[in-house]
Amino acid sequence: MLLLKLFIFFSFFSSTFSHDPHPLPRPLIIQYPEGIETHFHEFDDELKSQCTSWRFAVEANNLSPWKTIPEECLGYIKDYMTGRGYEMDLERVSKEAGVYANTLELSRDGKDVWIFDIDETLLSNLPYYVEHGYGLEIFDPIEFDKWVQRGTAPAIEPSLQLYEKVLDLGFKIFLLTGRNEQHRLITIENLTKAGFRRWDKLILRGREHHGKLATVFKSEKRSEMVEEGYRILGNSGDQWSDLLGAAASSRSFKLPNPMYYIP
Amino acid sequence: MLLLKLFIFFSFFSSTFSHDPHPLPRPLIIQYPEGIETHFHEFDDELKSQCTSWRFAVEANNLSPWKTIPEECLGYIKDYMTGRGYEMDLERVSKEAGVYANTLELSRDGKDVWIFDIDETLLSNLPYYVEHGYGLEIFDPIEFDKWVQRGTAPAIEPSLQLYEKVLDLGFKIFLLTGRNEQHRLITIENLTKAGFRRWDKLILRGREHHGKLATVFKSEKRSEMVEEGYRILGNSGDQWSDLLGAAASSRSFKLPNPMYYIP
Repeated sequence: MLLLKLFIFFSFFSSTFSHDPHPLPRPLIIQYPEGIETHFHEFDDELKSQCTSWRFAVEANNLSPWKTIPEECLGYIKDYMTGRGYEMDLERVSKEAGVYANTLELSRDGKDVWIFDIDETLLSNLPYYVEHGYGLEIFDPIEFDKWVQRGTAPAIEPSLQLYEKVLDLGFKIFLLTGRNEQHRLITIENLTKAGFRRWDKLILRGREHHGKLATVFKSEKRSEMVEEGYRILGNSGDQWSDLLGAAASSRSFKLPNPMYYIP
Repeated sequence: MLLLKLFIFFSFFSSTFSHDPHPLPRPLIIQYPEGIETHFHEFDDELKSQCTSWRFAVEANNLSPWKTIPEECLGYIKDYMTGRGYEMDLERVSKEAGVYANTLELSRDGKDVWIFDIDETLLSNLPYYVEHGYGLEIFDPIEFDKWVQRGTAPAIEPSLQLYEKVLDLGFKIFLLTGRNEQHRLITIENLTKAGFRRWDKLILRGREHHGKLATVFKSEKRSEMVEEGYRILGNSGDQWSDLLGAAASSRSFKLPNPMYYIP
């Protein structure tokens, strides 16, 4: 955008030079054609509205499976993810979940469960996505696995606060993640380093679940919990595939994620 | 905001007059204290971000039941509802639903169903809410009933386009609404006037369903459809209580509605 403005600016400048019999009139004032700034703003505003609308469609689960973010929304999503927007949304969902958790009367039989997803729910892969176009690049599982193996994903702070709260309230915490079983050790190491101090189950995707949609895998795992007598009272995840399907939680909390989609 | 700016502007002006030995220096340039414009923008931007975040929480179903919109977001929601934002979101959800409908192979046995909610899905009550603070006033069922009885709610155009499309594709259309049975005739009249040309069932809330949550009422009605052998392939509604619960549709489409919440 800045480049375009500069280009137009210099175009007028050069036309001033080449055709005007008084190439440098005093005072030297070079004006945009009337209203051109307004047009830029309108274009910016329209694009911003379109990208906000796309993001809402993501968060309301209205979109068909998508593989990359819209190219024209790259700047918008970068601003959202690295600015106040993402942080604010994370804080709000954590707060709402906490308010809900507080209202529940737990039965103290060790069967009240809160489920957390891991990636973009407890741990942030934003440092990876900053280097990979915020979801503009097609997902590269090999590169992403390398990042996971570093075990340096930071905590999502508002989620850590919720985590502490539901632990203190007496919930059992089950971590249910699409990460592969082979990443168990590094995942434990990363979670611990990021401040997540204890959990009751860490369920990763074993060999027998390869190739299943996340919705199916997670629904099966939740159904097993229910069969074992657990009550799933809360569920936090950044993907609708964390939340929808069989044995859904009494209440689900959708964390924002405009960077990728897992069916 | 403008008044405040003018006030500050004239405050500086008058102080220039009263204390300066050269009341009208040349050139006459009156400056805001450094950064004051930036502060105004920051305040505006922060509020806008907060209200966008609230709207995101509504659309992702993260909020506890709420009765009125946040007071500070009135201007934001008014702008959204009457500007391009709402329109854009309606168009997107209609388009996405249409794309999905096109991909389905219907079985031509008359059992493929698309469910539509009515208020804020097919018909717009925006003219009513414009007069009632865009959701800032507590819902008044008597006043709202009077509005419904006028039968003048306009069509939501993108929904009408989707409606036509799914009809043409051969779906059965079931209208499932929380409106009371006593409004059946005026509802038919209003729908017809707004251009909705035919449907296969119009299910309103009868006396036996009074006092039930919308989620329960609608889940029961969907379950009956499934028992009768219908396949619910699509469901369009502006409330999560239109979409969640038993016998959920294969895919659901959440229309935007930041003005009110029905549990």
